[in-house]
Amino acid sequence: MMRQSRVDRVLAALKEMGLSQMLIVDPMSIYYLTGVYLEPFERFYGLYLRADGRHVYFLNRLFHVPQELGIEKVWYSDTDPAAELVAERLDRGAVLGVDKDLRASFLLPLIEKKAAAGFVNASYAIDRTRGVKDEEEQRLMREASRINDAAMAEFKKLIHEGVTEKEAASQMLKIYQSLGADGFSFEPLAAFGANAADPHHAPDDTAVKPGDCVLFDVGCMKDGYCSDMTRTFYYKEVSPERRRIYEIVRAANERAISLIRPGVPLRELDRAARDLISEAGYGEYFTHRLGHFIGLAEHEFGDVSSASEWKAEPGMIFSIEPGIYLPGDTGVRVEDLVLVTEDGCEVLNHYAKDLEVIG
Amino acid sequence: MMRQSRVDRVLAALKEMGLSQMLIVDPMSIYYLTGVYLEPFERFYGLYLRADGRHVYFLNRLFHVPQELGIEKVWYSDTDPAAELVAERLDRGAVLGVDKDLRASFLLPLIEKKAAAGFVNASYAIDRTRGVKDEEEQRLMREASRINDAAMAEFKKLIHEGVTEKEAASQMLKIYQSLGADGFSFEPLAAFGANAADPHHAPDDTAVKPGDCVLFDVGCMKDGYCSDMTRTFYYKEVSPERRRIYEIVRAANERAISLIRPGVPLRELDRAARDLISEAGYGEYFTHRLGHFIGLAEHEFGDVSSASEWKAEPGMIFSIEPGIYLPGDTGVRVEDLVLVTEDGCEVLNHYAKDLEVIG
Repeated sequence: MMRQSRVDRVLAALKEMGLSQMLIVDPMSIYYLTGVYLEPFERFYGLYLRADGRHVYFLNRLFHVPQELGIEKVWYSDTDPAAELVAERLDRGAVLGVDKDLRASFLLPLIEKKAAAGFVNASYAIDRTRGVKDEEEQRLMREASRINDAAMAEFKKLIHEGVTEKEAASQMLKIYQSLGADGFSFEPLAAFGANAADPHHAPDDTAVKPGDCVLFDVGCMKDGYCSDMTRTFYYKEVSPERRRIYEIVRAANERAISLIRPGVPLRELDRAARDLISEAGYGEYFTHRLGHFIGLAEHEFGDVSSASEWKAEPGMIFSIEPGIYLPGDTGVRVEDLVLVTEDGCEVLNHYAKDLEVIG
Repeated sequence: MMRQSRVDRVLAALKEMGLSQMLIVDPMSIYYLTGVYLEPFERFYGLYLRADGRHVYFLNRLFHVPQELGIEKVWYSDTDPAAELVAERLDRGAVLGVDKDLRASFLLPLIEKKAAAGFVNASYAIDRTRGVKDEEEQRLMREASRINDAAMAEFKKLIHEGVTEKEAASQMLKIYQSLGADGFSFEPLAAFGANAADPHHAPDDTAVKPGDCVLFDVGCMKDGYCSDMTRTFYYKEVSPERRRIYEIVRAANERAISLIRPGVPLRELDRAARDLISEAGYGEYFTHRLGHFIGLAEHEFGDVSSASEWKAEPGMIFSIEPGIYLPGDTGVRVEDLVLVTEDGCEVLNHYAKDLEVIG
């Protein structure tokens, strides 16, 4: 059956936006509301929510849905015009909220057919709802991060003389699985030395050298929910400047976390971490936002950046991940997931943040 | 630099559609045209092509692009309004072709700003171009399928008394890597017995039993290109009806392949395979299209179905994958990739299609 309390929260958010209907297409959002996950590849897949409760679930005949959801299902074949089937069901007299991910190939025909009185991006209704985790989700997020903490302790042991980033990364899936995870929440980043100065560097054949940083940005999936943590170690030795950089990043992480409580604007967290790094002289080397929301997906809507207009609210879970990236030299990032609580926050990661020189 | 011959083919296709500008957002299409691949996650990432050659590449500052492409780059930060930056560059007096995957969150603001004289789905221009592989791509596709053939011979050996689908699937990545592949082109499907009756069944803890089919739908990536092949074995023994079903599916595969030559409508291939299966009495159990295009992505635009309006053309590569799925009983699929040649086709897979009873 539908997860009614979540559906009700989405409908309430739509109502606040003046909307009575919405077409949701993000498979994760549909899973969130129905408990059914499927990967539609390039095929259309949608859940149409209506304020009057006459929701419709649009499915390709190829998809397999064991559960009964208690709402109308419309099955189509690869040869059916799916946009027309959807258009027929819509309330033409009302504006349609659409998911941010609805593709142009589907949206343009709906617009052309005048299938609704207007079209607006209403993802906020579902994404904001997903951003505030209910108790069941909080429990699952804690568990995914608990495994991630345990995994980090193992990943550290992968570093020895001559090991390459790819070799280290290739061991991680097995370690996660041995700890009970279902898989990665994203391809693990393992970056050594100057490679870590690129925040999205993919593991390559670079071997670790004494004095290199060893940056692991890693996460696993457990029962549908994601973890995501970064720790930066140094191999064998660490220069005074690199140690100083590490301590600045760690302090930025801890400063932002110390400020989290209901009502604090998320952009203030970004500013606090950024100011600390800037005052230490490295502002230009912190090149990304402070954090992102996470849950069923590794990157969910909502971020912790200077552009964020959200305030912290109990149940929100996001990352706090300041970094300093010195091209050609080193990169340091220290990332935790945090859960906003009634009077502060709970840090979901417990792996230590003291600078560790390993190997 | 840009891959000019491919860009020229896209611009020619746009011109045929009466268009002088297009916004491409599929990261694979951008890779195809530039040689740069990056994963933008939820951030905007686009290549704007213009008939006059004044192309623009839109990038988040977080992205790392080593190559010089010889076109204007516009970098934006997470806090910049990316849709406005794009809107400023567009030719407002001309219709804008957009990629089918352009998201509503980006398209709706462009429409609202009247950033172009109209908006149409012009993916055909790039997708059709990608559908016809050039010589370099043909070489890479052959190599990915060569590895896949070799891998299938190893996968077969994973089946022994008591092995589960998950256990078999969990060995596959290492086998691919040992054969020189870079990774999966999609999560491998390993389905035993009645599980194979669901064409998209994900590996679970089901153990193989004598008389079960063992269906492997697997593919690897090599140098950016995908392979994809299905073989169905039987474990220890096979009943006469299941053997008959196997032979029908195999005959459908071979019949479709025998008809491939330039000019043949792709829907005729689907029909030929479907007729053969229907005449044998199993038409209702062949529940999907005959095939899909493949290349940089495992599923590319273009399919081999009753709805296809394309004709075969030298350089096209697609799958031929008929199947029969008997709920609660068994499932059989036999899939090859084929390359249309000047006078017929080249089957990229060479793993035998005789029914093999293994274990």
